[in-house]
Amino acid sequence: MAFVHSLNLVPRVLKGEVNAVARLLTRAEAGSHECRPALDEIFRRAGRAHIIGITGVPGSGKSTLVARLVAAIRQTGRRVGIVAIDPSSPFSGGAILGDRIRMGAIAADPGVYVRSMATRGALGGLARGTLEAIDVLDAAGYEMVIIETVGVGQDEVEVARATHTTVVVSAPGLGDDIQAIKAGILEIADIHVVSKCDRSDADKTVADLKNMLSMGLASARGSWQVPVVPTSAARDEGVAELVAAIDRHWTFLREGNRLEERRRLINERRLLKAGEEILRDQFVRQRNGQVLKLLEQLQARTLSPRTAAERLLQDIHPGDAP
Amino acid sequence: MAFVHSLNLVPRVLKGEVNAVARLLTRAEAGSHECRPALDEIFRRAGRAHIIGITGVPGSGKSTLVARLVAAIRQTGRRVGIVAIDPSSPFSGGAILGDRIRMGAIAADPGVYVRSMATRGALGGLARGTLEAIDVLDAAGYEMVIIETVGVGQDEVEVARATHTTVVVSAPGLGDDIQAIKAGILEIADIHVVSKCDRSDADKTVADLKNMLSMGLASARGSWQVPVVPTSAARDEGVAELVAAIDRHWTFLREGNRLEERRRLINERRLLKAGEEILRDQFVRQRNGQVLKLLEQLQARTLSPRTAAERLLQDIHPGDAP
Repeated sequence: MAFVHSLNLVPRVLKGEVNAVARLLTRAEAGSHECRPALDEIFRRAGRAHIIGITGVPGSGKSTLVARLVAAIRQTGRRVGIVAIDPSSPFSGGAILGDRIRMGAIAADPGVYVRSMATRGALGGLARGTLEAIDVLDAAGYEMVIIETVGVGQDEVEVARATHTTVVVSAPGLGDDIQAIKAGILEIADIHVVSKCDRSDADKTVADLKNMLSMGLASARGSWQVPVVPTSAARDEGVAELVAAIDRHWTFLREGNRLEERRRLINERRLLKAGEEILRDQFVRQRNGQVLKLLEQLQARTLSPRTAAERLLQDIHPGDAP
Repeated sequence: MAFVHSLNLVPRVLKGEVNAVARLLTRAEAGSHECRPALDEIFRRAGRAHIIGITGVPGSGKSTLVARLVAAIRQTGRRVGIVAIDPSSPFSGGAILGDRIRMGAIAADPGVYVRSMATRGALGGLARGTLEAIDVLDAAGYEMVIIETVGVGQDEVEVARATHTTVVVSAPGLGDDIQAIKAGILEIADIHVVSKCDRSDADKTVADLKNMLSMGLASARGSWQVPVVPTSAARDEGVAELVAAIDRHWTFLREGNRLEERRRLINERRLLKAGEEILRDQFVRQRNGQVLKLLEQLQARTLSPRTAAERLLQDIHPGDAP
């Protein structure tokens, strides 16, 4: 198979060709310089999809929920792209399987595209290429793009800042420590889901969430009333209600200039993240040059990290291709 | 109380004056520009302390362990500084209490200094000022500086990259999802601790860890044999063994040029992080200027995030004070 330049993949991505989508996503995830002009063009052509983040603490049953949610969305005729971010070793880069397998049933549907990406903890927050992956699926015509994260903390907040609608999944009966961590991500929710509502202690979780929302956290979402949607995979309940809540939030955003505001926040994050990526590229490029010299001075403690970084930044010429 | 310039606090920090330490830490955490020359000077004067990271999944009993560990270290006569990183809302910046309270008993000891810092999830990884806090405690003469993190994932890996010795705490009987996440942080351990070893299922956790280590992960640590230390807070067992393991690792590092290598890795991370901080400062400074114009072009999708970031970086003059 001859090498196809990324820019030549763009028209095929725009026509929704799965093969072209897959190849461009692989290059985006690898951080290939060759694909940058293509991703720039994809960014310019994207902007129609409803981007949905789904996040939850470990053990919340989130992956099962996502599989059912996608099936329910498909019944409304819409195409769905999924970016699944796996927890993985920052050293090996290897993904942990398991949750992915449950997606098998829907993966055969041509109206669904699932892309699994490893996190790159060491580089901070979202995996490289995640935001570009959203653009690619958006430009390829998927009406809804779902970002699913496994884990807690940093990544979830990053995801919330890259999406239009954030769904936070909670489950009854998780331990106190888990609940404490969860507190940090509760505020990012546009929609709460309580899974496993066949359990007897689920009512308490639903009540706790509603109680917390009534205490004023909802105000962070403007006039949007954050709903709490109970679901049960065992009883096959609540997923249609979740689709309805997601659609209702999308309608809400498109009233007035709310969607524009949300997009503006997303773009702020992207600008900053892109800057950080350029900085890291410079670091790698200069590893045996200027960076080496600065490190020697840090090692001898004759220079502080801040002063060394200032010198590194002064020498950045971002346009340089490696 | 008149304002004392940060540079004037430095000699007092070097003498170990707790009051000066506290004030400089507060300024470092706030990201005050005024204290930068002082922190630069502190960096140059630091470099003697043994920096220890202690991390573990939620529910691992880590905080109880840290309290006992500190008490045991104090019995050897050494002074201990502790930087405790709290999970907190990225929006409110408010810390979750609870774990901190357990530290109360040792907080009255003048040979122990405890500093609690909020995470700043939104800015990626470690809280601002964490690395500087290590320097300050190091320069103030604490022979051991312990960084304790609550939570899982990103922060832990960052902590491991800022310390000489990383202790990972596991507990028996945590769920599968927790274990999966834990897999990502197991590799960062120089020392494993299994807490709650009074439980009957603890033997299995110890055996699992040893088994995993024997499968070759230990090779990442060179010739260091990663020990698995069983502890029990209920039976007051294992803490002396943990102190011994930590001391053994410090001795190991100081043989050959291992400590220099570790310090070099730490300095690499610090250089990159300092660069990211300068970038963020520029972003904030230009929020109503160049950043505003770039965001308008992103919003109109006439410019890609990457190109916009290149333009932002070209205009950075790091030396500018705001």
